[in-house]
Amino acid sequence: MDNYKIIVAYDGVGYHGWQFQPGIKTVQGTIQNALEKITEQKIKIVGAGRTDAGVHAKGQVANFWANINLTEEELYRALNAVLPRDIRIINLEKVPLDFHARRKAKAKIYEYRILNSKIISPFLVRYVLHYPYPLDFEKMREASKHFVGEKDFTRFSSSDKKNNVREVYYSEIFKRDDEIVYKIKANSFVRYMVRKIVGILIEVGKGKIEPDTILDIFENKDNSITVPTAPPHGLCLLEVIY
Amino acid sequence: MDNYKIIVAYDGVGYHGWQFQPGIKTVQGTIQNALEKITEQKIKIVGAGRTDAGVHAKGQVANFWANINLTEEELYRALNAVLPRDIRIINLEKVPLDFHARRKAKAKIYEYRILNSKIISPFLVRYVLHYPYPLDFEKMREASKHFVGEKDFTRFSSSDKKNNVREVYYSEIFKRDDEIVYKIKANSFVRYMVRKIVGILIEVGKGKIEPDTILDIFENKDNSITVPTAPPHGLCLLEVIY
Repeated sequence: MDNYKIIVAYDGVGYHGWQFQPGIKTVQGTIQNALEKITEQKIKIVGAGRTDAGVHAKGQVANFWANINLTEEELYRALNAVLPRDIRIINLEKVPLDFHARRKAKAKIYEYRILNSKIISPFLVRYVLHYPYPLDFEKMREASKHFVGEKDFTRFSSSDKKNNVREVYYSEIFKRDDEIVYKIKANSFVRYMVRKIVGILIEVGKGKIEPDTILDIFENKDNSITVPTAPPHGLCLLEVIY
Repeated sequence: MDNYKIIVAYDGVGYHGWQFQPGIKTVQGTIQNALEKITEQKIKIVGAGRTDAGVHAKGQVANFWANINLTEEELYRALNAVLPRDIRIINLEKVPLDFHARRKAKAKIYEYRILNSKIISPFLVRYVLHYPYPLDFEKMREASKHFVGEKDFTRFSSSDKKNNVREVYYSEIFKRDDEIVYKIKANSFVRYMVRKIVGILIEVGKGKIEPDTILDIFENKDNSITVPTAPPHGLCLLEVIY
């Protein structure tokens, strides 16, 4: 039995997220189908984490245990030949048997892209949120700092049932070309966390709330401020750190 | 009656080319539908030239004559609001009545992108030809020079019925990031011209023919060498010059 680690990049627009669901086009399901076609075995792959419908990845990580009669290079080539072009295996290698893409993940880095200009190129619309109205970048930058540290992200998640405490290592916003880019590294993420952080940063940018109001949202869970969820297509999972 | 000139960018993947065809999703048809929705008039637009199914544009130009009860700014905003996100109006302005996007065009510039590396990012697959085998870039560059000047492009077109003499102002190949980019400016283009030039340049890159064989293809129309047509998605209409 071998344990294979893969790094996967995908354009999430055509997929209902990472997580396998029977009869629905997902990234995990598509890779599992490709593996079955190549090996004639049913192989379940373990992703480092789920990405939502429409979210992209440049460095998703997954692993699977299997006996496959191909070299790593052959399997890598076969997978990329069989997979649709919007999913690419960037790297494939055998790793020790105890490697587990989700349990061994120490941190993940996500990026969210916003284009704050009147018109967006049709070549960016799949990957960048187009926000054509004024945004106060300096206030957004001030606000972005409030997410660093060990915090309870219940108000920035889709559910409040579980333990929603997460540790954010950095949370920064900067300009790149014409874009406003938000980048965050954390030990793990609750569902919708990045999209809700970006949602509230845009509220700050619009002047609807002040940067320090974020502290109040964290401290007072009954706070009446709605935390909007930014659309998925601006979001990309950049890297999983082990 | 006013004459409107528009500059249009589009991701061609989802369209059966520029040219209107009843019941088929084309760029021209989609813009005409948007104009009809906004103005409640049937308006025919004139494109600078047709682009084939799957070909992109950053600077296609079109014009239309109409009486529209909106300012240029209002019409520009309305069009971008109504159009699907993979077609964007980059600019809209009133021009003299005799402006005609096709007849007044003096030259066009096209670009073709090739990624000559083992693996392609899923974010580039829509816009770049992925060719993962060795290519001799220097030979391709030598070959690219043979297309400059006034020449009969019959062997580099899909038909030999019409006058296929065109004047090429420059034809150059260069590296940009990890890509090989081919750029060409000509007074006008016969159908499939750029894709067939790129098709033969790839044959040169593979070592299947020598750069100077292109002179023979031009001179001897009965030459037995097949001129392959490179796929559409690597091609983009950059600019129309008036």
